[in-house]
Amino acid sequence: MLTSSCLFSNSQNPNPEREKVHPNTIMATIQGDNVVVPQMKLERLFCMKGGKGETSYANNSQAQARHARSMLHLLEGVLDNITLPSPDELFTVSDLGCSSGENTLFIVDVIIKHFAKRYEAIGCGPPEFQAFFSDLPSNDFNTLFQLLPPLAIKISLEECLAAEGRRSYYAGGVPGSFYRRLFPAKSINVFHSAFSLHWLSQVPESVTDSKSSAYNKGRVFIHGASECTANAYKQQFQMDLAAFLRSRSIELKAGGSMFLVFLGRTSVDPTDQGGPGLLFGTHFQEAWNDLVQKGLVDGEKRDSFNIPVYAASLQDFKEVVEADGSFTINKLEMFRGGSPLIVSRPDDAKEVGRALANSCRTVSGVLVDAQIGEELSNELFALLERRATSHAAELLEQLQFYHIVASLSLT
Amino acid sequence: MLTSSCLFSNSQNPNPEREKVHPNTIMATIQGDNVVVPQMKLERLFCMKGGKGETSYANNSQAQARHARSMLHLLEGVLDNITLPSPDELFTVSDLGCSSGENTLFIVDVIIKHFAKRYEAIGCGPPEFQAFFSDLPSNDFNTLFQLLPPLAIKISLEECLAAEGRRSYYAGGVPGSFYRRLFPAKSINVFHSAFSLHWLSQVPESVTDSKSSAYNKGRVFIHGASECTANAYKQQFQMDLAAFLRSRSIELKAGGSMFLVFLGRTSVDPTDQGGPGLLFGTHFQEAWNDLVQKGLVDGEKRDSFNIPVYAASLQDFKEVVEADGSFTINKLEMFRGGSPLIVSRPDDAKEVGRALANSCRTVSGVLVDAQIGEELSNELFALLERRATSHAAELLEQLQFYHIVASLSLT
Repeated sequence: MLTSSCLFSNSQNPNPEREKVHPNTIMATIQGDNVVVPQMKLERLFCMKGGKGETSYANNSQAQARHARSMLHLLEGVLDNITLPSPDELFTVSDLGCSSGENTLFIVDVIIKHFAKRYEAIGCGPPEFQAFFSDLPSNDFNTLFQLLPPLAIKISLEECLAAEGRRSYYAGGVPGSFYRRLFPAKSINVFHSAFSLHWLSQVPESVTDSKSSAYNKGRVFIHGASECTANAYKQQFQMDLAAFLRSRSIELKAGGSMFLVFLGRTSVDPTDQGGPGLLFGTHFQEAWNDLVQKGLVDGEKRDSFNIPVYAASLQDFKEVVEADGSFTINKLEMFRGGSPLIVSRPDDAKEVGRALANSCRTVSGVLVDAQIGEELSNELFALLERRATSHAAELLEQLQFYHIVASLSLT
Repeated sequence: MLTSSCLFSNSQNPNPEREKVHPNTIMATIQGDNVVVPQMKLERLFCMKGGKGETSYANNSQAQARHARSMLHLLEGVLDNITLPSPDELFTVSDLGCSSGENTLFIVDVIIKHFAKRYEAIGCGPPEFQAFFSDLPSNDFNTLFQLLPPLAIKISLEECLAAEGRRSYYAGGVPGSFYRRLFPAKSINVFHSAFSLHWLSQVPESVTDSKSSAYNKGRVFIHGASECTANAYKQQFQMDLAAFLRSRSIELKAGGSMFLVFLGRTSVDPTDQGGPGLLFGTHFQEAWNDLVQKGLVDGEKRDSFNIPVYAASLQDFKEVVEADGSFTINKLEMFRGGSPLIVSRPDDAKEVGRALANSCRTVSGVLVDAQIGEELSNELFALLERRATSHAAELLEQLQFYHIVASLSLT
């Protein structure tokens, strides 16, 4: 069972956590025409959040590790079906949207050890392995690099498998958006990306354009929006995914594969976003309305803010992959991830309310701070906490997340 | 004319500067048996210096840029003699000891544009270019990545040359010590390393071992030391350089080249270190003795501290390259780098004294802080400043630096 580890924190993690906000969002917000705040300001804010979250990062990273472990059987099933390249060739893995935590190291280690065993099984020594950790330039690569175990090469497979504190691959960090090119042509064997592709490269421009029929007036998310707004979000998702696939299809070696996990929805209708809809489209939406009603934020300021997340349907995803034409879908499934609201006392409404507000702030706090400043942001999340507390039982019952798990290989 | 841009700062740069300390030293101090302080403590100190130096970094980086520019003709001469690989092949450059500044970006850009022009001259479109920036994991890769211009690929050479704010290469950061393997076999076309290879991987163990004949009793640097101590330093340099060459010879593609610049000395005798000797072996040495005489530091504490720098002779370098046997020396020269003491009023002894103390602290401050703590370190550098001030005229006249410039290609 998959859980939405990247999109949600638990109640033991009260601080907004930089790692949780996929930074592709930030770059998108910066690079689109719809710039909300100057690039430097946003990047500075982003970095501060990172610094503050130091203590809670460890907890959070352990939670993510559990979640990553819970889908290992899916990943390993996929890895088993990849044709083994010659052991004389360099074997390169890249994690896209790696963030700065131990989970990316864990997953890359799993992938490389899996292949080392497969080479061993056919009587070959392992090839040279290389891993690239990629995320936006604002990602905390320093922390990631300091977590990297020391390199141990030219050791036997047995030693390699036993050497827990060592890595058997050359490592590099690659800063950039995965919606553009990151690597030279035909240089990667396996791409892995978890909990990142639901982040759009930007809020669709028409959604915050008051002259457009897609203007998302009165709302801050696609959930419950008009059909026009929904189409704009869907088109953005599909354009972004198409750009992702185009870049990856050039970068993959012949026979290369991708394993992708990201937020999905079970409804055909994109204005019913399921779990993310409940998170960003109900109490969070109402908290924004509260700010407007209190006169603390004007309506236009609210309407120019939108959450650049899109939980796709299997069909949304399939259409883009088929239109691109470079990939064969080996596996495409929707997994129920369960509730992100991990609370010690489910009957304590206050704890549930706090957990929801923290979860929401964890992923959208940087964007909200950039839009209305930290003080109003505090007020917004306090209002959200109050509203969520009074709907605690309902939230615990209804807040469920689904993930799309896809394995694609170059046709 | 080369200047010792990495080892010395000027008087406009009063803060100890993280970029100036080549971090291979830090790892060495950590990884040898001779561990002075726990790894985490040292890394933490190292990072703090980085944070503080934010303002002076820009100044300092401009100075380094000037120095880098002053030897461009040498670099370009070397690049002209490298056999051009097929334009169908990926062309990969790596800067070793890159630090976090704009100079590494400048140099990599020069190298790549130079090759783009050479491909153009033979009527070929440019190949795909890739650049790896490598330094110890404690290096500030985040800053480097944020300085990286956006990627612009699939543009013509003219656009590529004109597009000042863009890069025409895929970029990655590679954390690790260059005295070990960093890259897969046969993956790099050109290595560049400036102002880094004079940093030893560690203080030679025997030099701080009171039972050894190489024990550098009463001293903190090789300059003016005994023959045994000098041999230990020399052996460490040659062992380190051999390890460097061994790793690079595996990582270079056939026909690959290296351009290396690092501190050298003109004397045959290694206990006469020239400029670095004057910096670490005279007034700095005496300031340590002052601390001991004042009873602030005991003699053993002083004697367990040594500066892990070795200014090699051309012969020292040549011996190792020849013993390794993988490389042909295309160019090997000693360049006079001039004085690092850039002062606005050369007749102001106080300014000269301050400049020397700052220069010294810039490169050794992190190690001194780790050895005796920040408070005593402040005292040490204040004592140094006082001594340097009373020898200002002499220092301005005598403090001269030389660099070894070497171009090697795979035999």
